[in-house]
Amino acid sequence: MRISELSVKSGVAIPTIKYYLREGLLHQGEQTAATRAEYDGSHLRRLRLIRALLEVGRLPVASIKKVIDAVEDESLPIHEMLGIAHYALGPTVEPEPGEDWRLAREQVDRLITDLGWNIHPDAPTRDELAQTLVRMRQLGLPIDLTPYVEAARKLVSEVEMDTIPFHGPRDAAVEALVLGTVLYGKALDTLRRLAQESESAQRLNPQS
Amino acid sequence: MRISELSVKSGVAIPTIKYYLREGLLHQGEQTAATRAEYDGSHLRRLRLIRALLEVGRLPVASIKKVIDAVEDESLPIHEMLGIAHYALGPTVEPEPGEDWRLAREQVDRLITDLGWNIHPDAPTRDELAQTLVRMRQLGLPIDLTPYVEAARKLVSEVEMDTIPFHGPRDAAVEALVLGTVLYGKALDTLRRLAQESESAQRLNPQS
Repeated sequence: MRISELSVKSGVAIPTIKYYLREGLLHQGEQTAATRAEYDGSHLRRLRLIRALLEVGRLPVASIKKVIDAVEDESLPIHEMLGIAHYALGPTVEPEPGEDWRLAREQVDRLITDLGWNIHPDAPTRDELAQTLVRMRQLGLPIDLTPYVEAARKLVSEVEMDTIPFHGPRDAAVEALVLGTVLYGKALDTLRRLAQESESAQRLNPQS
Repeated sequence: MRISELSVKSGVAIPTIKYYLREGLLHQGEQTAATRAEYDGSHLRRLRLIRALLEVGRLPVASIKKVIDAVEDESLPIHEMLGIAHYALGPTVEPEPGEDWRLAREQVDRLITDLGWNIHPDAPTRDELAQTLVRMRQLGLPIDLTPYVEAARKLVSEVEMDTIPFHGPRDAAVEALVLGTVLYGKALDTLRRLAQESESAQRLNPQS
């Protein structure tokens, strides 16, 4: 299909498609004449992926680029490729000076060891969790992560990982991991806030 | 304490404290002389709250202002006050034209009715979940929310709501709701990504 049809089918404006082509987020079409390129279903699917990452995942373009580079670089072993995509989805957290941080980070490392989880020693998610623990402690929130660990483990092992085609094409595996992480994460977060509103309404107005 | 001591104890720079005072995020201290005000523990606690909302919740200043206005406006009934704080925590989602959106929104409303959840008809969380469902459908992800509904309900009813002092001072209730929503949500999201990395490592390298 031509770029005009790609635009109609994807709902993405032509100038935006050209921007994605220039930035390398979208692979080039097949050049069929000097000023004409042909696009196919892979471009349509990629545009939907970019849109989901932008609008639902709220990732900046630089992070989207990293994810897509990992999908396209066939020389990367699958585990590293998935890790790059995965880490791009998290926020960047800088370790903070002081005892609070050191203790929280130790708590995270101990938790991971105790659970027997297989996590890279430099995984940025360790610092991310440590930051949350520091804030919880500073603000006096109770810090028992057990129910959250259980919920996360159950969802991931019983549901989410089964949706990922680990032994199929590598792009499909990354795509499923990224989309699942972002979209199921978003659904879970929204459902949690819905449950909070409902529970709060019931506790405050038992007759309602 | 003077503003200099407030700065040291909170770790927030004096110009930033003055900015929060001007924006109404931080309540004024007690004026003890023309150029001198006295601050207390309530200011220290408020600065920690602002920092948590900014750094952990990643809320823009306008949203933080809304939350704090709701905490301070004693004329607001507690359920409305909690709602304002709660809705400020979610993203702003605009309904999209088309059949996909209509179907997804219907699915959300039906889910809430079937669950018997007590949710305001105009709650922005309804559109937020609809948007995620539209993306899932467009990208071909399986949409069975049951395990996520169960996880959310369990965490909220068995753990989170018990940390909120509904019948104590109103500011404490909002603060606990906001902090719990943001920080436990963040912890859950990070733990989910940690569980994914571990599960992925084990499935790809069974000997590790």
